[in-house]
Order: sequence, then structure tokens, then C-alpha cells
Amino acid sequence: MKKINVGIIGFGTVGKGVVKNLLKNSAAFSKKIGISVKLVKVADKNIKSNRGIKLAKGMLVSNPDLILEDDSIDIVVELIGGIHPAKEFIKKALSKGKRVVTANKALLAEHGKELFEHAAKNNSEIFFEASVGGGIPVLKGLREGLAANKIYSIHAIINGTTNYILSRMRDEGISYREALKAAQKEGYAEANPKLDVRGMDSAHKIALLASLASGKWIDLKDIYVKGIENVEQIDIDYARELGLVIKLLAVYKEKQDGIEVSVTPVMVKEKSMLAAVSAAYNAVLVEGDFVGNILYYGLGAGEKPTASAVVSDILDISRNILSGKSKPFILDFPNSRKKVKPMGKIRSQYYFRFRVIDKPGVLSKIAGVLGKNQISISSVIQKERNKGSAVPIVVMTHKACEKDVQKAVKLIDNLGMVKAKTVVYRVGGR
Amino acid sequence: MKKINVGIIGFGTVGKGVVKNLLKNSAAFSKKIGISVKLVKVADKNIKSNRGIKLAKGMLVSNPDLILEDDSIDIVVELIGGIHPAKEFIKKALSKGKRVVTANKALLAEHGKELFEHAAKNNSEIFFEASVGGGIPVLKGLREGLAANKIYSIHAIINGTTNYILSRMRDEGISYREALKAAQKEGYAEANPKLDVRGMDSAHKIALLASLASGKWIDLKDIYVKGIENVEQIDIDYARELGLVIKLLAVYKEKQDGIEVSVTPVMVKEKSMLAAVSAAYNAVLVEGDFVGNILYYGLGAGEKPTASAVVSDILDISRNILSGKSKPFILDFPNSRKKVKPMGKIRSQYYFRFRVIDKPGVLSKIAGVLGKNQISISSVIQKERNKGSAVPIVVMTHKACEKDVQKAVKLIDNLGMVKAKTVVYRVGGR
Repeated sequence: MKKINVGIIGFGTVGKGVVKNLLKNSAAFSKKIGISVKLVKVADKNIKSNRGIKLAKGMLVSNPDLILEDDSIDIVVELIGGIHPAKEFIKKALSKGKRVVTANKALLAEHGKELFEHAAKNNSEIFFEASVGGGIPVLKGLREGLAANKIYSIHAIINGTTNYILSRMRDEGISYREALKAAQKEGYAEANPKLDVRGMDSAHKIALLASLASGKWIDLKDIYVKGIENVEQIDIDYARELGLVIKLLAVYKEKQDGIEVSVTPVMVKEKSMLAAVSAAYNAVLVEGDFVGNILYYGLGAGEKPTASAVVSDILDISRNILSGKSKPFILDFPNSRKKVKPMGKIRSQYYFRFRVIDKPGVLSKIAGVLGKNQISISSVIQKERNKGSAVPIVVMTHKACEKDVQKAVKLIDNLGMVKAKTVVYRVGGR
Repeated sequence: MKKINVGIIGFGTVGKGVVKNLLKNSAAFSKKIGISVKLVKVADKNIKSNRGIKLAKGMLVSNPDLILEDDSIDIVVELIGGIHPAKEFIKKALSKGKRVVTANKALLAEHGKELFEHAAKNNSEIFFEASVGGGIPVLKGLREGLAANKIYSIHAIINGTTNYILSRMRDEGISYREALKAAQKEGYAEANPKLDVRGMDSAHKIALLASLASGKWIDLKDIYVKGIENVEQIDIDYARELGLVIKLLAVYKEKQDGIEVSVTPVMVKEKSMLAAVSAAYNAVLVEGDFVGNILYYGLGAGEKPTASAVVSDILDISRNILSGKSKPFILDFPNSRKKVKPMGKIRSQYYFRFRVIDKPGVLSKIAGVLGKNQISISSVIQKERNKGSAVPIVVMTHKACEKDVQKAVKLIDNLGMVKAKTVVYRVGGR
């Protein structure tokens, strides 16, 4: 039986999961695919900690070159995260003719083009299923399972931290601060949660999904990103009243006039599959020209789910090695000259919450500004009445252009009777 | 660029979809995977009908041997359905060294073992993604995307007809008969709906999923099958009151004492992802030892979704051909000596609806019979009071054994105060 030797760089949470998986399931892999996958070495700066896993003597090393320069190793798994030295390790592995598996979304989103070109030059390949959606095999879906389709759109909840926070805010009526603290206590948010709550982690992931879907590298700087830090309970309540749920959605859409890639809090229909995705779960809804809507759902992070994706990649590569060739996959196939649209050109339905002095003529004034900016109203909620003092007015719109929305809101916020910055949400999803 | 030639046998609904897909998207495939996939011939008994697709002259033939015996054809797509002559066509194609793609769940569930052995003997392969869940790439998930896992369980809604009927019954309060008629009118049910509503179509599909998950062929006759023909509105109402939804679930579970494979109407939690699957949509929830719960969701039938799966298989095989070898996949790997358990041994929570004369002591009598048969009650609903005449009593149980349930119900149905056959549902899902 063909033997495939694997070396892992990075023995943290995911590294541990991968080692456990290989120790537990590799006998079954031999039976399933006729290949023996053997863990040969694990490198980590820290070789002292007790991780509760017994490795054979000499298997755990501190010098990654003992993996990168070991000719017997076929696949290098990079799990240290961050940009440097992960990038250098991957390039060295590829130069040595090794195949690479990584879970490093930040690195790939920022330097993927360079790394994939380097892989192609060395007749090698990089697999990265674990970089998006943890254990959910969605990249495989875009590359293979849905390969027959032209991808029209992707709507994704791909950050467990923010979905956990939003779910608790909605279920328990608590504030963003309280929900963040709870998430940190439960291990769903980092001590420094910025990368997650500001939407950047989702942006890294949608950059990769959008690149696979569109066939061209999507530049991070072209992605419009807005996080969940300003989500307030009052808007969650109004959303509920309107049959909507606030989710941090990463969106990719290809339209006639260009590509949209964005990460923003969006109000989605309560009855949609995306609304049903709660707690730290992730989901990716892919729309193809033939398949229609396909949803992938599962745990988007954690030791074991992420290890599932890493090891499934190892098995895929092992099959490729056995068959003698890398499976041809061309990532950068310029299938169109379409560019990423500036956010101003995006069209969507909108939710506005104005804070205004309750006096006659206020709504007509606001409606006037909206109308002049090509924004038409579909419904209005004004519940509180408190003559002469500030009350909320919620306005739902038909489809409008983001640029017009920004302009109108600026004008409205400058009106004397408007007492706070207007709150704006996109309404949509699927 | 390498050319892969494709022949299709069967130019019905799915055949049309596949032809449309290849005509529309094959230029993109060349860019994406560097292989030119060319449709060479289509065979159908009926070469007269106007299907609204223009094929090159001579491409449409009535004799399938013109495909099976054409040495230039690499992949044969079987889309005629049924057992004969589909089986003979597939065997002949494999004997001639051609790869086969099929959507024929009934054929594979009944004769899969023989066909896959025949494929292996001829160093060929059969791909069958379209046979389960239409366009949903769930077989690929079990074979590859989740390959790192030992599969603990599968809970699947894999028949669009029955899900459509149950959804309309619940949403509109109409009877089974009315919903079936509506489904037929909308094209979601056949004139003769038996294969769907009695659960046999789901059984074919769970046989294939369970075979992939367990690594051994599951025999159709070992699957316990119960359809939806007897689902009544009153039980849908009680379920709603209990926060539950009735779904026709195909279930695979591997436990210490054996394997469960079944198709039955099950009451699932309203807040679960499976409950959110409405109308003709399908969903497959896979539980693995590392990945946890993964849900695949999408359209389980129809011209275009099914074509998406067929063509994605064609592309997968094309990659394999290009790399020079079939990708090793061993379907029958006896990973355990576990057998399929008889249904009597299955444990589940249960819902009972008894129809009894409303008089003192009835509930205690019923509870007594249940208790003697190791069935413990978790809650009781008795709303209608109508002294001396028949009223419903709903009883929910803790986990109990199916054999005990059947025995207890038989005893209860023989009590004088019980006025109709007791209605029983499993409660579960995920």
C-alpha cells in the first residue's frame, strides 16, 4: 500500500485536532481509500507543554526545517497562522516539491495569488478547505461538487463569534457588550475580538469564496466591510416585529454591471435558512445557474471540525499523489472582465431608524429627502408618541442604491428635528 | 487541451438539463479545469419530439449501441431510469472500458453491489451524485469532503414530493388528499405517487447514503419503511403545540449494537435546521466524529439541479481520466461486522395519540400498560372533555424500544375503552 508521509507545523488547537484525527482514524483511511497516511513529524516552538497526546519519541521537534527539508515528507500542514513566517514556510515547502494544506485565511486572502502561482510553478498544490467555515466542505463544493454551475451569488455566515453574539442578543435581549463578554467567557470570542467583530475575519473568508466563485482573485481592499459593534437591541426588536433577523452576512454577487463583495450586518427573513443558523454555527448559501440554492451548514471553528477539513484535504491530496498528478484546478481563470463594484453602486432594500422630534410634518420632510434621492418607502413604523421630544421612526424601503442612501441619510441627519445619527441596515439575504 | 467525449442515453427531463448545461457552460469548464468536455451523442427511443434544443445533425440517435460501441466516447451517462435495460447498458459501457454517470437510485439500491464490482473488474468507475438529493453534492461529501470522519449518523429529507405535501398540510391545514392533489397539479408528485408517498424512493436513497457511510452494502430489505399516507391534520396540530414538525426522515445510525436504517415520519423540533426545510427542498444532516453536524440543503429534483450533479460528476471523472487513473475509492470496505438491527431494537422517544372514552381511570390504565412495557411518560395532553364519548389523549414518552412500543400499543388497542387504532410517531431527528 502506498504510504503518504505528513508533517505538521503548528501544534496548537487545530494541530492537536489533526494529530488526534490521524491517530484515531488513519486505519480506516487505509481501508477506505487504499492509502496509508502516516504522521511523521510535528513542529512547534513549544515542545514542552503537555497537550494530552502521546507522540512517538523524536516526533515533536522545534525546528520546522526538520519537516520542510525532510525528503520523505509528502504533505506539509501549516497551522501556525499569521502572515510571517507561515508564508515563508509554505513557499519553502512548495519549492521542495511538497504539497501544502493550510487553514490560514488571512495569509491566503492577502498573499494567495503569489502563493498559488508559486505552487503552480513547482507543479504542486495548496489545499485550504479549513480556512473557510471550519469543517464545512464548501470550497470543495465550489471547486468540484458545484463545478457544473456558473455561480451567481454567495450569502454566508462565516464567523462564529459574531453569529454567537447576535444570537444571544436576540434570544436574551442583552446588549452587545454583555453578549461579547458572554462569548469571551464561553470561548467563542478572543480577548481581543476586533478581527471578528469588525468583520475582517469574514472579509478574509469571503475573499477566498469569491475568488473561487468568480475565477479571479478578489483584492481585500475592494471588499466593503462593516462589523457588528454598533448593533443595538432596539433594531433587533424592530427587526423581529418585521419578521427579520440581523445576521453578519458576507455576500458575493455577480451581476451584469460587475461583482459585489461585502461584509455587513443584514436583516434577513425569519423564515429563511440563514436566519435558522444560530449560535456559533456557520452556513454558506451558494446560488448556481443550474443547481439553484445550495446551503452548507456546520461548525465553523474549533479543534475537531477544523481538523476534519484539514485531514479531508490530506486525503484528497493523497489520492492525487497516488494517481500521479495534481488534479488540474485553475484558480485564476479570467472568466470575465467584470470588476468589483464600488459599494455606492450596490442596490438593496434598506431599514432606517430615525430619531426625531415628534411633531407634525417630520415624516413628510424625511420622505421628501428620500424621494428626491430615488428612495421609495415600502412601510413605516412609528409606535412611540411623545409630543415635542425625540422618538424613533422606522422606515423600510424598496430597492435603492447605496450611494443615494448615504447621501440622503447625510441630508436627513443635518435636519434640525433629527436628534441622532440615523441607523441603516441592508435588508436581504435569501 | 485534452478532450473528453460524452454520450447520453435518455433524453427526458434530466437528459435535457444535462445537454443544456453542457451547451451553455462547457466553454467555462475548459477555462476552469483545462479539459474540453464534448457532447458527442444522445440516444433516446423517441427522436421525434421537439425538446426545444437544437442538436447538431446526426447527434440524436435511437440506438444506444451507437454510444456503447463508439470507441471515441469516454463517459456514458445513463438517464433512462428503471432497472432494465438501464442495468444492461451500464454493464456494457463498463465492459467497454467507459466510465459511467447515472442518476438511477432504484437500480443502484437494488443492484449496486453487482454493478460496482463490475466497474472495479473493468478498472472503471460509476459516479452517481444525482441519484440522491438532486443537485446537492452530498455523496461527494461522504466520499471526500467528510472523509476524515467516522460517520455516526445521517438524518435526511430526501424526497421532495413528501416534503412538499407535509409542508402544505402544515402551512394550510389541508388534508393529505388535498395536499397530494395540489402536489400533482404543481408537478411535485407523479400521477401514481406510490413510490414517493410510501417512502420507497427515500429508502433507495438512504440505502446509498448508508452504504457510503458504513462502508458496506445495505440491503433494501433491511430498511424499515413507513410512508406519509396516514398522516392526519390532528397530529400535525398536536405536534405544533409541542414545538414539533412532522417530516419524512430517512435515518442512518451506527451504534455499538448495530446499524439502524429506516424511513418513517418523525416529529422533529421546530427550531432544528431540518424543520426549516420546506416545500420540495431536500436536506441531509451528517454527523461525524470530528466534524460534528454538517447539513447539506438544496433542490432534490428537477431538470436543472439534477443536471448540475450529473455534469459535476462528468467533470470529476474527466479530471480522473486526465490524471491517468481512476481515483481510488473502495465502496465495500467492511469496517465493522455490525449488522443492520431489526426495527424492534431501535430506541426513540415516541408520540402516541389514543382515542378513548372519556371516563375516570382511562389514563391510569394506559399508563399502566406503558409502564409494564418499559415505556415511561414525559407528558400528557388531554384537551377535549366529553364525558362518555371518544376523545384524543396525546402521550409523549422518554426513550423506549420500538418492540416494546408495538407490544404496548397492541395491548392498549384491545382495551374496551379504546375506540380507534392508536397513532404512533417517533420523536427525534436533530
